[in-house]
Amino acid sequence: MTSQPTPRRPGPRTSASVLTLDGRDGHEHPDSLVTEEPLEIRLRDDHGRRTVAITMRTPGSDVELAAGFLHAEGVVSTREHISHIRYCTDRGVEPRYNTITVDLRPGAHAHLQPLERHFTTTSACGVCGKTSLDALDLDGHAPIESGLELSLDVLYALPTRLGAAQAVFARTGGLHAAALFSPDGEPIAVREDVGRHNAVDKLLGWALLNDRLPATDATLLVSGRTSFEILQKALVARVPIVAGISAPSSLAVDLARRFGITLIGFLRDHRANVYSHPGRIRLPATEGTRP
Amino acid sequence: MTSQPTPRRPGPRTSASVLTLDGRDGHEHPDSLVTEEPLEIRLRDDHGRRTVAITMRTPGSDVELAAGFLHAEGVVSTREHISHIRYCTDRGVEPRYNTITVDLRPGAHAHLQPLERHFTTTSACGVCGKTSLDALDLDGHAPIESGLELSLDVLYALPTRLGAAQAVFARTGGLHAAALFSPDGEPIAVREDVGRHNAVDKLLGWALLNDRLPATDATLLVSGRTSFEILQKALVARVPIVAGISAPSSLAVDLARRFGITLIGFLRDHRANVYSHPGRIRLPATEGTRP
Repeated sequence: MTSQPTPRRPGPRTSASVLTLDGRDGHEHPDSLVTEEPLEIRLRDDHGRRTVAITMRTPGSDVELAAGFLHAEGVVSTREHISHIRYCTDRGVEPRYNTITVDLRPGAHAHLQPLERHFTTTSACGVCGKTSLDALDLDGHAPIESGLELSLDVLYALPTRLGAAQAVFARTGGLHAAALFSPDGEPIAVREDVGRHNAVDKLLGWALLNDRLPATDATLLVSGRTSFEILQKALVARVPIVAGISAPSSLAVDLARRFGITLIGFLRDHRANVYSHPGRIRLPATEGTRP
Repeated sequence: MTSQPTPRRPGPRTSASVLTLDGRDGHEHPDSLVTEEPLEIRLRDDHGRRTVAITMRTPGSDVELAAGFLHAEGVVSTREHISHIRYCTDRGVEPRYNTITVDLRPGAHAHLQPLERHFTTTSACGVCGKTSLDALDLDGHAPIESGLELSLDVLYALPTRLGAAQAVFARTGGLHAAALFSPDGEPIAVREDVGRHNAVDKLLGWALLNDRLPATDATLLVSGRTSFEILQKALVARVPIVAGISAPSSLAVDLARRFGITLIGFLRDHRANVYSHPGRIRLPATEGTRP
């Protein structure tokens, strides 16, 4: 039961020997783990270079992860601000694949204040004295307006289509997935990660880099629970419908209601809960009820 | 389908109306969501007051969450450094329950450098050029030495005991749980949160505030996956056995192997995978194999 040496470029799966206990029996065998590695995201503009985040992620789609993270945090608002995104190019250092630098175009200055809100020195109340949503820096966002509608059949089919598109999950049981779907339920892109926020950052970073933002005709499906941060990322990317296989949190519902997002939870086995703006789900004309 | 007003002191559950779609039918009904609210954690010492984190958490055990977070991050090393932990006491602001201040004793200075590692300005490589574990500030920790052993029967019984001790999960489906168990499998403490890191911080903050650290004879069980950060918290609290109901990540296994932690995954239905230091699991003498 020894550690595997870290490969030069880590992949999404890592081999490891494991002792499986089954009732009174035990046997050792090779197994596959989801890879978790730190990624240091740096930003370089006219003012110099700085580290803006270290995130624990599953290697793969790192360029998209860096782009999506910076976009979701409000540091970069359009693809045009980005010149290059590259792994560490310092000579003589290995491994190179856990540091990535986002170079902005000359004249494009990073809007770093959003990141710094997390670690400010202040004598005034920050969160205290405000409603939760008001405290969370969402003032710059207007409610999402979109004519997107999904039929019930398309909605119910999304989890199966997500599962079919996932590559790694079945082998390790350790990954979260996020996918964008077209109005007729076709998967546009799917990304996976050990961290569910990272899976969404990779997916929406792909959308940013491929001129798919604002994503006002897309549906975002995540494999697990939907929390505030998932909805916040959807809001920045202007996604009108967000669905999760599992439960949403209260603040996710609050955000969805205030900002015009249709939020769906427990989407499985031809059932779903709709927590906000149900008008985007087309119910059969002759059946069902409509609040 | 209107938002509920935020109660003055939020609880772990929030009421909301929801439209449930079941096949072709739909009906609206009241439901219960897991509450997610921001908590701003502040630190006050001889040098003044500053915000050190804003975390999205389920209200409840906030004092323990603040203590556990600061301990896990290396900012506070013993309970004696803490004078008081109190909600915001500024006059005239409501709600008060989303800001908490940790007052240190006179002469006790916060070791803030660990927190600042996340947002440093540097021209040198941070993560790049090091192995992942070496990059993650674990140098101050020795491997855990503990004579703790669990029998197979005790190990297999832990998930059922966790489930029996969980209060909120069954009603909302949205919470992570973490529990500490004694060597004979009795639950010592259980905490829940919408964020799994918070559940562990609350639990280990309870241990810190109740003189239970180092927890060298305790087993930590978490309801989901085990990632690097869960293992990092266990290492700081000196917990020798960590078990999860679901999969571990590669970096969790790396950390467990290097620092003497027995890491168990997929613990359910009288089965388990042991990824490191299996000597702490007592297998039946006449059955099974032992690597």
